[in-house]
This record gives sequence, C-alpha cells and structure tokens, in this order.
Amino acid sequence: MINKLISNIRRTNAPIVVGLDPMLSYIPEHIQKKAFAEFGETLEGAAEAIWQFNKEIIDKTYDIIPAVKPQIAMYEQFGIPGLISFERTVKYAKEKGLVVIADVKRGDIGSTSAAYATAHLGHVEVGSRSCTAFDEDFATVNPYLGSDGIKPFTEVCKKENKGIFILVKTSNPSSGEFQDRLIDGRPLYEWMGEKVTEWGADCMGDEYSYVGAVVGATYPEQGRILRKLMPKSYILVPGYGAQGGKGADLVDFFNEDGLGAIVNSSRGIIAAYRNEKYAQYGAENFADASRAAVLDMVADINGALKNR
Amino acid sequence: MINKLISNIRRTNAPIVVGLDPMLSYIPEHIQKKAFAEFGETLEGAAEAIWQFNKEIIDKTYDIIPAVKPQIAMYEQFGIPGLISFERTVKYAKEKGLVVIADVKRGDIGSTSAAYATAHLGHVEVGSRSCTAFDEDFATVNPYLGSDGIKPFTEVCKKENKGIFILVKTSNPSSGEFQDRLIDGRPLYEWMGEKVTEWGADCMGDEYSYVGAVVGATYPEQGRILRKLMPKSYILVPGYGAQGGKGADLVDFFNEDGLGAIVNSSRGIIAAYRNEKYAQYGAENFADASRAAVLDMVADINGALKNR
Repeated sequence: MINKLISNIRRTNAPIVVGLDPMLSYIPEHIQKKAFAEFGETLEGAAEAIWQFNKEIIDKTYDIIPAVKPQIAMYEQFGIPGLISFERTVKYAKEKGLVVIADVKRGDIGSTSAAYATAHLGHVEVGSRSCTAFDEDFATVNPYLGSDGIKPFTEVCKKENKGIFILVKTSNPSSGEFQDRLIDGRPLYEWMGEKVTEWGADCMGDEYSYVGAVVGATYPEQGRILRKLMPKSYILVPGYGAQGGKGADLVDFFNEDGLGAIVNSSRGIIAAYRNEKYAQYGAENFADASRAAVLDMVADINGALKNR
Repeated sequence: MINKLISNIRRTNAPIVVGLDPMLSYIPEHIQKKAFAEFGETLEGAAEAIWQFNKEIIDKTYDIIPAVKPQIAMYEQFGIPGLISFERTVKYAKEKGLVVIADVKRGDIGSTSAAYATAHLGHVEVGSRSCTAFDEDFATVNPYLGSDGIKPFTEVCKKENKGIFILVKTSNPSSGEFQDRLIDGRPLYEWMGEKVTEWGADCMGDEYSYVGAVVGATYPEQGRILRKLMPKSYILVPGYGAQGGKGADLVDFFNEDGLGAIVNSSRGIIAAYRNEKYAQYGAENFADASRAAVLDMVADINGALKNR
C-alpha cells in the first residue's frame, strides 16, 4: 500500500492528504438543514450531513489528491450512525482511487492490538468465513505501550499489504511534556524514531517502508532530525495551515528524492469556504473552495521544495 | 461516578472488574451456532454471539461485582455490528447497576480529544438537541500526547460526572521500552504518575479523584511506588490471572483504607469454563463458571488484603 500511496503522490504531484475531520460547525447550513429535515436533529441526521459533506469534497478533489485522512473521533462522537458515515466515507474514497489513512491512534497490547489491526486493516474469521470490518489502507498507531502494541499491527500489514503511521512527535503545544524529555541525553521522540526504523526494517515496499511516522509540521527542527533517523519511513505531517505550519517549514521533512513526507491539512481544506481568502465561493460551493485550497497548498509545498 | 464506583465496591466487597473482552474462541459453540443460524457466518452473526455471551455473564455476576470493563477493540474488529453489541452491552450493564469502564485507550489533541471524550462520556449537540453516543461511565486514555490530550477529557468528566483512567505503567512485557526509561533519574512512568496527580487534583469526588491510572498487576514493585505518588487516584489494575498477577502481588496497589485499586480479570472470568478448575460446569453453564471464578478472585484478593 505504501507503493500505491507513492504512485498516487507521483501521479498527482501532490504530497498532501486531505483530513476529513468534519465538525458539524464546518458543514454548510443547507446540508445540515436537508439532513435534519430527513432524519431529525439526531445522530442519524448529523451522520447524514457529514456523509453528504464528505462526498462532495471527495467528488471535487479526488483527481488532484493522493489520499484522504478521516479522523475517526469526529465520527465516533455521533455513535453508531457516525461510524456508519465513517465506513461509507472510507469505501467511497477507495472507489475513487484514493488511499485512505485512518487517523484512529489506536494502540493496545497482544491480542487486543491484533483486534484493532484486524478492525482497521485486516480480516476477521467468523466461523468458516473471513470478513472485513472497516478496511482502511493505513492506520495511525500510538506507541506508548511498546513493541507488544506495534507488532500485531505490522503482522497484519504484512499479510494484507497495508501500512501504519506511528506517533513520534505530535503537532500540539504540549507534545513536549513527555516526547521531548531527555533519556540518556536524547529526547524520547528520537528513541521513538529509532524504534520506527527498527520496526519498519522488515516491512519494506519498493522504496519506502510501510511503517511510517507522525511528526507535526509545527516542529520543523525535530522533523529534520527525524527525517535522517528514519530514512526509509514515510512521515505523515499534521499541523499545516490552521495549526500554523507553512510550506517553507516543511522542506526538511522530505528526502532528497522529493518523497518521504505527506502533509495533512484538515480545516484549511474542508472548511476553506469560511476563510476570507475563499469566501467568494460561498457556502453553496464549499467544495470548490476546498479544491482551490488544495491547489494553493500543493503550490506552496512544491514551491518550497523547488527552492530548497 | 468515582463515588458510585466506590459505593459499588463497598456494597459487593469486591475490588474487581470483569473484563468483557469476548474473543469468538471463548464463546461456547451452542451460542455461536444459534447466532450463525439466525444471522449467518457474518459480522452480524459474530456480534449476536458476543452479545448473548456477555448478557449471560452479566446476568450471572452483576450482584457480586461492582463494574465491567468492555474492551472496545474486541467489538470494533466486527465493524458496525460489533460496535452495536458493544453499545448494547454498555447499556445493559448500566441497567443492572454496574459501573462501565470502557477500555478504549483513546487519546488525541484539542478538538479531537474532545470528540473522543464526547463519544464515550459526553453529550454532542445536533442542531438544537443534545444527544449521547456510547455513554459509558469511565474511559481509559493514552497520555503520550500530553496535557492537550487529557484536558478535553477532564472537562467532559467534570460536566458529566464521569471519570478516566490514564495509562501509566501497562501490564505487557515490553511496557518498559519507553515507560521505564530514566528521565532525570526517574522512570517515565513516575513522571506520568505525577502528572496524573496534577491532572486529578481539581477532579475530586468525595474520597478519590475521578482521574485514575492504569498500572499492570504484573509490576507490583512499580505499583507500590505509584500508589504513593498518586494517593488520591484510583488504580485500574489489569493483568490478574491469565497475565500472571496474583492477589498477594496486589496488596501494595491498595491504600490503607482498603480502597484505591480495582483489579481486572478478563479471560480468567469470562472463559473460566475452559479452565480445568471450572471444567465441571461445562460449556452450557459457562456463566456459572464465571460466577465461581469471580468468587475465587475476590477471596484471593480480599484474603491477601486481610493478611498484609
């Protein structure tokens, strides 16, 4: 699947991923109204609004992006109906040829981590049959529990040709509380980066490992160091745009081959119509605003890469 | 909710929680057969088998236990139908007066962590209405992302009278890879324990904070240290039984008041009928075997506490 991700990035010349994290407040009123008219102001109504919103954004961007990253928390808060919209979104994005990176940040131990891996990337046996649950392409994984939590994921990835991104240095202000603490003179995130390289070594696609890492755009200096520590790992970079990262800050997340990083933007793309810069599209044409924001983001990053 | 948990523990005199982590392989054939006959060898069939299994265990133990801890991964692997069974299990356990500790190990940042907190412990606004999604009593939370990931949970807990257990020192063999690393001379889990105390300080119930911690039964020495570092936090202790922990190892997880810890057993209770010790019950009476295993576990722990 890392091969498909890279092939999609090359085809679109867009090292980016659109974060499908639909807060209800991002969804234009006309979509909410229609959904509530049909399903009421219920979890089902919210879920329908989310699905219609996502579908239109995918329809208007799928030809210029390699991947989407739905954040499952935004669906889980609407319970079962929300998770049904998550599932529909995953399926629809895959039908459109997109790689789906599920931002689930799961992580447990042994058979429990195996169950999460199965839920999101694998097959589950039911009697004599083999079924799939959510069936995304990549999942994000929390490594606080150590190798016992990661190995079950890499096992499933090997069997299913899927991949993971492991949290290393997250984009938030307090990420340093634990991740930056020095252990034998080096911050925890560096030790984590070394582990990612170790875990990923026998999980190689053609050029890159299918065990990647998450490193926030808001920490470019750490990104530069981690890039070198994990030369064969793709880095998923959240925090562009709304969280403060810019293209010029991101060049060191990439390798010399122009590959090695995929930059996420969520709010900046899906709620672009609420940004003054794209206000001319209006709420009715919110997905056209998203397309324009994608093109601007790609130009920003590719411009920075060209000038480095 | 910490008050209700303590009150339930006092009433039953059982500082334990039953882990409802139903692997299909634990579920007696007669239940699987019936479910598959009705729904086929499908996710729906598996989910029905899980629900019937859980229901019978709850029916046979609810009067002698304070709480259950469903592990959501075991449901998530069966997709939407699995999560519907999770939801039914939560609702049914609450109807029976049990406290439900959802072992979800969620954790993200800002609005995303808030969405997870909402999903599991809170209310979500849909138009002019307020809805609930999974509505458990406690959730387990992964702290690798720092305060930005924890604060949204404590905010929701305050509003909703709910609680969390934060992963501090997990029960698995590789938990030391990161959690035991020394930072300024002290292992990471001690720093995490101090943070739990800090986060929990303004989240007090009558006697204990509703911000608790997870510390594995397999690490009694660390449990003793963490007990002192987090005097007002309840400790959720996994790893009893199948993972190797025994009552005598657990006394130092408790405070002098006999409170402060709740010990989980999953496989040892729910799959007790497959253990030689309880084989006389047979697969048909699996839930009676679970009840016997609960009584033995409580006697083991209370005996150890009496003799300390």
